[in-house]
Amino acid sequence: MNIPCPLDNIRIVLSHTSHPGNIGAVARAMKTMGLQALYLINPKSFPDPEAEARAANASDILLQAKVRSELSEVLADTVLTAAITARPRDLSHTSFDARQGAMELVQLAQQQPVALLFGPENSGLTTAEVNKCQIIIHIPANPYYSSLNLASAVQIMTYELRMALTANTPLPPAKEELANLSELELLYAHLEQLMIASDFLDPKKPKLLMQRIRRLFARTRLEKEEIQILRGVLSALGKRW
Amino acid sequence: MNIPCPLDNIRIVLSHTSHPGNIGAVARAMKTMGLQALYLINPKSFPDPEAEARAANASDILLQAKVRSELSEVLADTVLTAAITARPRDLSHTSFDARQGAMELVQLAQQQPVALLFGPENSGLTTAEVNKCQIIIHIPANPYYSSLNLASAVQIMTYELRMALTANTPLPPAKEELANLSELELLYAHLEQLMIASDFLDPKKPKLLMQRIRRLFARTRLEKEEIQILRGVLSALGKRW
Repeated sequence: MNIPCPLDNIRIVLSHTSHPGNIGAVARAMKTMGLQALYLINPKSFPDPEAEARAANASDILLQAKVRSELSEVLADTVLTAAITARPRDLSHTSFDARQGAMELVQLAQQQPVALLFGPENSGLTTAEVNKCQIIIHIPANPYYSSLNLASAVQIMTYELRMALTANTPLPPAKEELANLSELELLYAHLEQLMIASDFLDPKKPKLLMQRIRRLFARTRLEKEEIQILRGVLSALGKRW
Repeated sequence: MNIPCPLDNIRIVLSHTSHPGNIGAVARAMKTMGLQALYLINPKSFPDPEAEARAANASDILLQAKVRSELSEVLADTVLTAAITARPRDLSHTSFDARQGAMELVQLAQQQPVALLFGPENSGLTTAEVNKCQIIIHIPANPYYSSLNLASAVQIMTYELRMALTANTPLPPAKEELANLSELELLYAHLEQLMIASDFLDPKKPKLLMQRIRRLFARTRLEKEEIQILRGVLSALGKRW
């Protein structure tokens, strides 16, 4: 029986990558650190000979890469997704540096799938994408020039994941029974529907209300049972709407 | 008055780089982490438009890069040089992983120049080059595929240098008055000359004798005064040869 390695539970997700060469370089970076699961959300061009060329001997990662059109599909069964971003966001998710964030991810990956989400080369992640993540990871860099190449950002993160795996300090036991993203989304949808029904939320002027709620729950890492309880409450309250 | 930053005392030295694009990618990696001093030993092609292209907005690093034909010239005034290598060596230098090695380098760079030496893309550093270094730094990687791209290796090392700089744990004060490479080389030359003169070393069959001696001293980080003492002893003993 093989002992499953936490790195096998960690997905690298690239959103809307422009240059196929970068996808190849990311595959190589992943393989050097022992990661395998690459997901591509609407890449501009893939498969592509330039990706093959830059992957060097990591073309097996490209062959197994999964191309998807919807981010939600990729994250549905994950218990934690980190948005890798250099830009500060107006509403703050819990934010970690690369080292701390890698430890968080590896800890949960001992039992369940987690993901790291990287945006397009030039524009970065959209607010909607960041909202699907529970934490933000920030790679420390030169404040006057923090423009890391996509593959370089993946290289640093996968290196820190590998280091977290072999860290001398034993990791605390993984929390069990965390809710996955599908369950969270069902909670948000349930809540939003009731907020609208009850005229608390005007869908024509939603402001940042749902965003604030998402981030509130994202910080808590909800357990499955807690979701059941919350939805039980909503169902009960919703009978009148 | 500007407070000097240890990162300004850290040189990235690339030996015999084949692909100019990699030199550009290295410049970008350096700048993202706040390093500036790039040295190129006999690059295959430099300057080169491909280097410019891959450097993105780090072309200032390329403009200031120093091209040299002799490694010794670049290292003459350094107090510590690390060979960055994936391959194990038969005779062991003191070896650090990337994180520990970065701390060693940053500590000394608070006062004096240090260097990191990276070999050509395919063949790696020669034994002669590694012998000019005092320590080896090994980047932890997948044992089944440790083939890091040159710029990726530089990215991880410069990231760890930046992290070492901002580490919460205060660094111990830098040792002063360490011997630089010129002084060490004079010692080795002095010693070798006497070993040959005394028939201890047959220059036609040198075996690994000088290598063992170099590594022995490399581990100790000789101080200037210690070198003076050793050379005093050699001078004294050498009067009879």
